[in-house]
Amino acid sequence: MQERMSLIVFSGTVDKLMAASILATGGAAMGLEVEIFLTTWGLEAFRKDNYKTNMRVSKDFENYAPIMMEQMMVKKVPSWMENLKGAKEVGDVKVYACSMAMELFGMKLEDLEPIVDEVTGVATFVERAKEGRITLFI
Amino acid sequence: MQERMSLIVFSGTVDKLMAASILATGGAAMGLEVEIFLTTWGLEAFRKDNYKTNMRVSKDFENYAPIMMEQMMVKKVPSWMENLKGAKEVGDVKVYACSMAMELFGMKLEDLEPIVDEVTGVATFVERAKEGRITLFI
Amino acid sequence: MQERMSLIVFSGTVDKLMAASILATGGAAMGLEVEIFLTTWGLEAFRKDNYKTNMRVSKDFENYAPIMMEQMMVKKVPSWMENLKGAKEVGDVKVYACSMAMELFGMKLEDLEPIVDEVTGVATFVERAKEGRITLFI
Repeated sequence: MQERMSLIVFSGTVDKLMAASILATGGAAMGLEVEIFLTTWGLEAFRKDNYKTNMRVSKDFENYAPIMMEQMMVKKVPSWMENLKGAKEVGDVKVYACSMAMELFGMKLEDLEPIVDEVTGVATFVERAKEGRITLFI
Repeated sequence: MQERMSLIVFSGTVDKLMAASILATGGAAMGLEVEIFLTTWGLEAFRKDNYKTNMRVSKDFENYAPIMMEQMMVKKVPSWMENLKGAKEVGDVKVYACSMAMELFGMKLEDLEPIVDEVTGVATFVERAKEGRITLFI
Repeated sequence: MQERMSLIVFSGTVDKLMAASILATGGAAMGLEVEIFLTTWGLEAFRKDNYKTNMRVSKDFENYAPIMMEQMMVKKVPSWMENLKGAKEVGDVKVYACSMAMELFGMKLEDLEPIVDEVTGVATFVERAKEGRITLFI
């Protein structure tokens, strides 16, 4: 049986999305099945084309944001979206959108980036996460 | 043996409390035993009557807050407190207050909403969480 | 086999570092092997001497920060760094620095507090965390 890592991506700041994408990449590289559940601000970050302009960084550390953004450019660090696409290519990575948040925000699957596989409910996600090895709320 | 999901609720913003309450509801619906451990700002959010006026939303996304609050009203989305009460009715859901945070804030059990079952220490919570399937820090 | 708790410390605010240090202390007291993985702002918080002046509290609750800081002084609550040192003395607690974040921030191991044991990659951390009982993203 393949082992699973489940990530609930609640936040939509670039620093946390980067952390999520790196964890997904690490998990996929280790042969884990990775399931990502997008909700609230994490879902908003996957609205079509939003990632191209999203420069939001956790307000708690906003004084560091310009240096971090600059270093990521200088060191040609791939974006979180590129990381996620890469993780999908090398491993078994699925991206789910929370059905309740979709309804609240009045979104349809076609409003989201194509990297999102399908819409699912929280109970289904929890049911699968509980059979996994690692579940994180990001 | 019943399977367990443990939620450490550290944050006290409405958006994160909503996420916690929906996860608790989903877990209870799936037949999981749900244990919620309130600490720091999550504990403050359960101080008597605080939930009635708490409109705090993660500062990272405060520009979205008015739209979210409006949509929750228009769509008659139950509040996080209503969700938690519902989860307690359908399933095995316990709410614990962190003893250290209680002491730091000078709180007694009677200062908290009646949905809080009892005061407990972090070591006891960890001891039980480690036997569970999912543990999240929210 | 010793049971393991893994903490990904992404945030660098005093309130979250305090929560992480108390969880580490509780875990160590329960006989768990505790592994802490510092990344992004959590790594920055362990830069040499930073903890001595770090007064950052989650912006979402900054209105409570002065009261919390005052109560911690009045009640002589040990700092998160003191907690971590204590946890290391009583139990099996390791502190790792994320290699990618180190590179991004241009840091070397000697730039960090001596409590940090070594630099490691996210894949190695995930590989070990998946064999554990609890993994949290803080």
